[in-house]
Amino acid sequence: MASKVNRVVLAFSGGLDTSVILKWLQQTYDCEVVTFTADLGQGEELEPARQKALLMGVKPEHIFIDDLRDEFVRDYVFPMMRANAVYEGQYLLGTSIARPLIAKRQIEIARQVGADTVAHGATGKGNDQVRFELGYYALAPDIKVIAPWREWDLTSRTRLIEFAEQHQIPIPRDKRGEAPFSTDANLLHTSSEGKVLEDPWEEVPDYVYSRTVNPEDAPDTPEYITIDFEHGDPVGVNGEALGPAALLEKLNDYGRTHGIGRLDLVENRFVGMKSRGMYETPGGTILHLAHRGIEQLTLDRGATRLKDEMMPHYAALVYNGFWFSPEREMLQAGIDHSQKNVTGTVRMKLYKGSAWVVGRKADVKFNLYSTDIVTFEDDMGAYDQRDAEGFIKLNALRLRLLGRRDR
Amino acid sequence: MASKVNRVVLAFSGGLDTSVILKWLQQTYDCEVVTFTADLGQGEELEPARQKALLMGVKPEHIFIDDLRDEFVRDYVFPMMRANAVYEGQYLLGTSIARPLIAKRQIEIARQVGADTVAHGATGKGNDQVRFELGYYALAPDIKVIAPWREWDLTSRTRLIEFAEQHQIPIPRDKRGEAPFSTDANLLHTSSEGKVLEDPWEEVPDYVYSRTVNPEDAPDTPEYITIDFEHGDPVGVNGEALGPAALLEKLNDYGRTHGIGRLDLVENRFVGMKSRGMYETPGGTILHLAHRGIEQLTLDRGATRLKDEMMPHYAALVYNGFWFSPEREMLQAGIDHSQKNVTGTVRMKLYKGSAWVVGRKADVKFNLYSTDIVTFEDDMGAYDQRDAEGFIKLNALRLRLLGRRDR
Amino acid sequence: MASKVNRVVLAFSGGLDTSVILKWLQQTYDCEVVTFTADLGQGEELEPARQKALLMGVKPEHIFIDDLRDEFVRDYVFPMMRANAVYEGQYLLGTSIARPLIAKRQIEIARQVGADTVAHGATGKGNDQVRFELGYYALAPDIKVIAPWREWDLTSRTRLIEFAEQHQIPIPRDKRGEAPFSTDANLLHTSSEGKVLEDPWEEVPDYVYSRTVNPEDAPDTPEYITIDFEHGDPVGVNGEALGPAALLEKLNDYGRTHGIGRLDLVENRFVGMKSRGMYETPGGTILHLAHRGIEQLTLDRGATRLKDEMMPHYAALVYNGFWFSPEREMLQAGIDHSQKNVTGTVRMKLYKGSAWVVGRKADVKFNLYSTDIVTFEDDMGAYDQRDAEGFIKLNALRLRLLGRRDR
Amino acid sequence: MASKVNRVVLAFSGGLDTSVILKWLQQTYDCEVVTFTADLGQGEELEPARQKALLMGVKPEHIFIDDLRDEFVRDYVFPMMRANAVYEGQYLLGTSIARPLIAKRQIEIARQVGADTVAHGATGKGNDQVRFELGYYALAPDIKVIAPWREWDLTSRTRLIEFAEQHQIPIPRDKRGEAPFSTDANLLHTSSEGKVLEDPWEEVPDYVYSRTVNPEDAPDTPEYITIDFEHGDPVGVNGEALGPAALLEKLNDYGRTHGIGRLDLVENRFVGMKSRGMYETPGGTILHLAHRGIEQLTLDRGATRLKDEMMPHYAALVYNGFWFSPEREMLQAGIDHSQKNVTGTVRMKLYKGSAWVVGRKADVKFNLYSTDIVTFEDDMGAYDQRDAEGFIKLNALRLRLLGRRDR
Repeated sequence: MASKVNRVVLAFSGGLDTSVILKWLQQTYDCEVVTFTADLGQGEELEPARQKALLMGVKPEHIFIDDLRDEFVRDYVFPMMRANAVYEGQYLLGTSIARPLIAKRQIEIARQVGADTVAHGATGKGNDQVRFELGYYALAPDIKVIAPWREWDLTSRTRLIEFAEQHQIPIPRDKRGEAPFSTDANLLHTSSEGKVLEDPWEEVPDYVYSRTVNPEDAPDTPEYITIDFEHGDPVGVNGEALGPAALLEKLNDYGRTHGIGRLDLVENRFVGMKSRGMYETPGGTILHLAHRGIEQLTLDRGATRLKDEMMPHYAALVYNGFWFSPEREMLQAGIDHSQKNVTGTVRMKLYKGSAWVVGRKADVKFNLYSTDIVTFEDDMGAYDQRDAEGFIKLNALRLRLLGRRDR
Repeated sequence: MASKVNRVVLAFSGGLDTSVILKWLQQTYDCEVVTFTADLGQGEELEPARQKALLMGVKPEHIFIDDLRDEFVRDYVFPMMRANAVYEGQYLLGTSIARPLIAKRQIEIARQVGADTVAHGATGKGNDQVRFELGYYALAPDIKVIAPWREWDLTSRTRLIEFAEQHQIPIPRDKRGEAPFSTDANLLHTSSEGKVLEDPWEEVPDYVYSRTVNPEDAPDTPEYITIDFEHGDPVGVNGEALGPAALLEKLNDYGRTHGIGRLDLVENRFVGMKSRGMYETPGGTILHLAHRGIEQLTLDRGATRLKDEMMPHYAALVYNGFWFSPEREMLQAGIDHSQKNVTGTVRMKLYKGSAWVVGRKADVKFNLYSTDIVTFEDDMGAYDQRDAEGFIKLNALRLRLLGRRDR
Repeated sequence: MASKVNRVVLAFSGGLDTSVILKWLQQTYDCEVVTFTADLGQGEELEPARQKALLMGVKPEHIFIDDLRDEFVRDYVFPMMRANAVYEGQYLLGTSIARPLIAKRQIEIARQVGADTVAHGATGKGNDQVRFELGYYALAPDIKVIAPWREWDLTSRTRLIEFAEQHQIPIPRDKRGEAPFSTDANLLHTSSEGKVLEDPWEEVPDYVYSRTVNPEDAPDTPEYITIDFEHGDPVGVNGEALGPAALLEKLNDYGRTHGIGRLDLVENRFVGMKSRGMYETPGGTILHLAHRGIEQLTLDRGATRLKDEMMPHYAALVYNGFWFSPEREMLQAGIDHSQKNVTGTVRMKLYKGSAWVVGRKADVKFNLYSTDIVTFEDDMGAYDQRDAEGFIKLNALRLRLLGRRDR
Repeated sequence: MASKVNRVVLAFSGGLDTSVILKWLQQTYDCEVVTFTADLGQGEELEPARQKALLMGVKPEHIFIDDLRDEFVRDYVFPMMRANAVYEGQYLLGTSIARPLIAKRQIEIARQVGADTVAHGATGKGNDQVRFELGYYALAPDIKVIAPWREWDLTSRTRLIEFAEQHQIPIPRDKRGEAPFSTDANLLHTSSEGKVLEDPWEEVPDYVYSRTVNPEDAPDTPEYITIDFEHGDPVGVNGEALGPAALLEKLNDYGRTHGIGRLDLVENRFVGMKSRGMYETPGGTILHLAHRGIEQLTLDRGATRLKDEMMPHYAALVYNGFWFSPEREMLQAGIDHSQKNVTGTVRMKLYKGSAWVVGRKADVKFNLYSTDIVTFEDDMGAYDQRDAEGFIKLNALRLRLLGRRDR
């Protein structure tokens, strides 16, 4: 807290917490605060953030509100989807993947406005502080970082509210009491954790979900959709070409309607403890499955195996905040190389919480599936069954040598 | 085909194909055939197999019909479940895991009856021939193997039926025509492939499914169950202790009722081609998810990551038939070491095709989840948020050095 | 052997074996043989191969003798060196890496001359047959392949010599008797195996070595050299810029003089057995160590670790003949991405069988080593030792939770 | 520094630094200090440590001097050698592997004497602080840890000496000035780093080496030795059975004489920076190579590959201080499983800085190498060369499908 700060770029949502942080930064560091509010598809009005910032004395030219939705989906979500990334077998990394983009944009703004410092509103127990700050340091090694939650003494909600009241920071009615859980949202997902969710034996109450209908309330009739892929990325839904953000929004609509993508998870945080979270990733869940579906036709066995082996490392890097690291980029280079023929169309069935791949097709110049070869019918010599004997014999040779020795 | 065969142990289902093989072996090799029929929970009467074998001249003492269900689940399915094994991201390996046990028992019988040869009814295009034969060779390096489908000239169904008619082999009415698909079943799953399933764009017709109701026809009300685990293995359902086979049967019932565990997959065979299969793994799907659920509480992050990284290798070994290999055993030794504290109870919600973990608990001597530490509330010093700064700073150091260089 | 062959491109060394094969192909298949002789730096005159081919009736326009040395080193050896590839901990893959290039050039020639078939002189027990043929099939899926050693009845040296005599094929004096071992050579290495080398307890006799002096006979004074790297590839020795082949030749000279790069190995072949080989890789050994040396300064920890983890897979792919596979290309894409800053100079000390890195330097725009940060002296705040406490505390957190549980 | 300390167990070498720490702890924390001095084969007299401790007021019953050499080699060095562990391709982990044992013993003593705190003399920039403290926390989650170098203000050597003088701590003559480098030693190795070694372009001066003769001064005649292994561990040298520590000492003698095991390395520390170190691991280098040698005969290909793939992870865990972690134990369980047949004898040639495996043999009940199968001579049907065609064809199938698509 000692070091002198001239100008700080704050990741500013406009909510109570980051408003308090804004004021606290101005007071504590006697510095100019620049606010940055990103539209990542979290589904909130962003103009109120501008009003709040102005009210708290931020200069108009120091208020940045950017629509990053297409960049987010195209340059962060899609590359990660190419990797089929899931953390600890299940989590689609919806919060993790948004942080590097916010960090990157904050640093760009810091350069633009000549700020020497950045700040964020993540707590000292979570992963997000790590993700933000590793992003900052990778992109601007000499930047100063302020993480108020690790520094200040506003450690309880009561004290936070008091501080807000003292400084005329408007407090939304529903923030007066203790929130029953904490939430993060963007175009890919909504996550909730804390308080009512802390007992991992208790089912997540239905009111926690905000992005999907309860599967039990979803339509009684399945719905079928198709998703078109080119070079590993989705480009259309039901035959209609769509840009990255629009496509994910469309899939989110389908997912919401059919109650798809709910996940109740106890996960291992990078900072060392286990936590229980609830995730809703409606469109992303559909996309993840569909991508696997099109890879089934167009990706070779060797590439599939290598991708599966690389995946846990990739997912951990994203989860832990190492997006801007040489090893994430190396893995991405390998993965992207594999996607050049991942082109075709997948048909999905959506029904009461589930999405199933029920069909996939690809043009002959992308397809590796060959009915001629696999058929039970006479394959006209495409495959010589006698080759199998030699194949097995030589694969068995080392096992036979072992068997002879170990009998 | 040249080498002399004295006595051959045939993996004999009693169906048309292996009946033809039995006769063909007797004729072609002029040898004594010993039949081995395993009850792996495939849900068929096995006594008819005895009658058929007798009819075709097999000596009573050379007819082996063994109930291997508990051994199958305890020594093959459960170890694989400890590994969270899925092949190519999705397939729960239901066929693959049964083959090593059949091979092992065939070899035991061969030793018992003094047979020099074993035979199986798998085709020359599939994975099963590999799995059987790698098992044979690993356990009995000098055994002779006959794979009639790779040898004989009964290459069409018409010719097979003709052969059966010529030799008074009874032909079930429904086998007269071409079967619309081919099937394998055991306590863990039923698989179907071929013919009507060969076009991967066409949805699998509902009549292909035999182990699960259509999710649309499943109950409109969710059902909740609990599964108890000890040291990584399930030991009870809804509080009732159950042996391995009985437990899996119980979960199969739940899965069947709620339409759980259907999978439509295009996969990469070890013999080099892609094939499209349909799998039903009702109880296994529930078990797989539940095991992940209990690991969430009881398995450390490092162990979780290592298991996830080992898994694709493990799954490929099972899929490719290398169960009896040093590397599968090495992986198993590592995995099993991790399971000693995987003890607790998982609550699942079953509904219209889906199974969700909605709760998990573990005794304090197994549990690694700590509300004290993760809580948003004051944690009484269990975790010092200031530690996070140093943690981030040193994790960032190499990225900062990179950033300085690469700017 | 049944299928009709019109024209076959033979990998032809001009030696006794491939001369016999040439004649045998002409006789057995009644086809036109096209010869392809590659200069990969094996250190033999190639013009005699032309004479022999002419003598046996090959048309002049069907005799191909190509200097592939630069392509070999630039496009095969260097990419592999970027990966630090060693098979089973020690083997630098000198034979393996030459096969894909030979296969590729054979297929190009086959296309050029309208040949439908290719042939090679590798035996049926070795890895080389696999490497050649996987290359052929990957590049020309419908090519026919003839591997005479797996087909013919010239299974002993006596019979081979008889065949040669019958067909006026000149027999070098030293090939009359049984060669005491078998050899392969190219610019990267010489390998020897078989006969006198088959007992792995017996030391390799000194006369087997041909590329390096015995370390005991090497100079009594160490020699120092420098190697310059750019983007992961060596580009100069002792400050002199050199093309790929010339550079490797220069390092081979140094290695030869100082007895560097001898390896006595029992390895696991892809075809399933163990074999004992002797390898001499003089320049390659120096290069391998030097590349590690320059990576020490210029490659980040995360990239280093990922490369080390990828390496055994990469090496096995090269060893097993999967150079032209999607997974080798994926790994290469990842590895190559890491090499963009691997630029600098390494100093080596060469002495009596050993090469040691004794110094390495890199321009500030490539260097990640920072004396300022590592120094024991006061670092002027570049590194805050108090950060270490938080770093350790959070790394320890999961271990502490484990410790509390497991006490 | 705030928290109250009653009794602290200090890892005490008896040297200047830990003597200053002893006094500083007594003063700063007003607590009782218990000293623990381990004989890990560092080659120093330990009784002087007792005298110093007594002099500074440590109670006789609070002075622990333990000979841990056999435990060190048997339970730490050998398990690591089974893994063939090398960090970043080269470092044999000699310092890293000693830390967990010291930590474990310190915690045992803390329990025995009722101490609530442990302390060590590692600096705040290095890896050793991490290794010590992760060990402490894993074994005693609630222990307090004092790392004086991160706390105190004795940040220059001058101040340290002043403090020593003020408190009558004897200062060895050679410690008066700045030491030209810093050293750690145990039975496995000696490491040196810092000051004169900080420029990675400068060759390490010969006076830095203390455990090995300069290769140029080593005998002009090679020496041959044999090493016997049982189940992966060395048990004898030249036919003489030796306990763990005695065996490593014997190999150290051979290594010293022949100048074996010097390594000049720039490595990546866990705390994020690169550092340059010099290592001497005479016996360990011989052992590492010999272990590879005996595995060549007795370890299967699949096990070899899996071990090689696991190794970088294993080595990083040891290097980073995670010896007492679930994932290190899991890897160890897998590795140890592979070693049950790693039994036999290796012959090494030692000469002027190099150790070469020149022969290896194993009893038939451990040996997987089969001359019968590998021989170029007629193998009497042990291997059917025609099997190779099928083996290659099916391995090629996916490549051919790729080739057809991608042409």
